[in-house]
Amino acid sequence: MRRLDALWLRMKCGGVDLFTAQPIGFIHSPYLETSAIPKGLGARHDAEGAIELLREYEPGLKDIEDFSHLFVLWEFDRAEGFDLIAHPPADAGRPHGVFSTRSPRRPNPIGLTVVELLGREGTSLRVRGVDMLDGTPVLDIKPYLSSVPAEKMRRGWLEEAEKRGSRE
Amino acid sequence: MRRLDALWLRMKCGGVDLFTAQPIGFIHSPYLETSAIPKGLGARHDAEGAIELLREYEPGLKDIEDFSHLFVLWEFDRAEGFDLIAHPPADAGRPHGVFSTRSPRRPNPIGLTVVELLGREGTSLRVRGVDMLDGTPVLDIKPYLSSVPAEKMRRGWLEEAEKRGSRE
Repeated sequence: MRRLDALWLRMKCGGVDLFTAQPIGFIHSPYLETSAIPKGLGARHDAEGAIELLREYEPGLKDIEDFSHLFVLWEFDRAEGFDLIAHPPADAGRPHGVFSTRSPRRPNPIGLTVVELLGREGTSLRVRGVDMLDGTPVLDIKPYLSSVPAEKMRRGWLEEAEKRGSRE
Repeated sequence: MRRLDALWLRMKCGGVDLFTAQPIGFIHSPYLETSAIPKGLGARHDAEGAIELLREYEPGLKDIEDFSHLFVLWEFDRAEGFDLIAHPPADAGRPHGVFSTRSPRRPNPIGLTVVELLGREGTSLRVRGVDMLDGTPVLDIKPYLSSVPAEKMRRGWLEEAEKRGSRE
C-alpha cells in the first residue's frame, strides 16, 4: 500500500495528529497588541526586534550571521480557531480563502515572516521586519536562499486591491 | 507580568507544548524516497507534483489560482529527532547550525517550499518545484507576496560553497 493511501485510511478512521509544536525561542517586538501591527495596503514592516533563542538550541545558530535574510516560522499564539474565508484589511474586508491570505485564523496557526538579520549576540538575533506580537513563540528559523524574480510573480487579489487603491 | 515573562516561567517549570499539527492535505510527488530528491550544489527543483487538499478545507482555496507562487509548509514526517549541527550535501558535509540549513532533522519538523502554481482542479493544486516525498502531510499554504531583491541577499556558507565549486 502506498504511503498516501495509508494516510487517507488513517484520516477516514478519525483524524491524524502529526507532531506537537515546541517553542525554540520567543520574539521581542515593539508590538504589544494586534491593533499596533501595521496592516493593509502599503503597510511597511521595517520594525526592529529580536529572536531570543532558548539557550539549549544555541549551537543550531552556527554560521547564521553570514545570511542577510531569514525565514522565521512562529505560532499565532493569540489566535483561536480558524475560518476558511478571511477578510483581509489590505482588500477592504473582501472575502478570500484563508490560504490566499496571511490571516492568523488558520487550521495550523503557523506564521511566516522574512526578516533581515542585523546582528547576533549569543542566543539573540537582532532583526528588521518583525510583524509579530511581543512574546510570540518561534518554531523554526531557516536561511533565505533564493527569490522569485518580480517579473514572474502574480499576486492575485492584492494586485487588484493595489490598482483600485491607486485609482481612488 | 508581561507575556514573555509568563512564557519563560512556564518554560522553566517544565516545557511548553504549543499546538498539535494537523494535515490539511498531502503532497503528490515523483519522489518516493529521500535519495531520489535532487540535493547539493546546483540541484534543480522543477519537478511537478500536486497539493491534494482534504475536501473539508476546499473553501480556503478561494482566489488562490490568481497567485503565481505559493509557500507550502509541510511536515518532515519521515525524519526522526533532530540535530543542532547539520552537514548539508551542498557543502560537502561541512558542519553548520541546523537553523542555517534546510536539514529535515529540526526541533519542529516543518519544511518550507516555494512552488509555482500551474493550475487548480477542485481540491487539487498542480504545482512546479516540489522537493517533498510523495505522501508528505501539508500544514499550510500561503500566498507568496514579495521577494528580497537579489542584490540585497547574502547566502552565507552556500555562497562560499558555490565559489569553491566553480574553482574546482
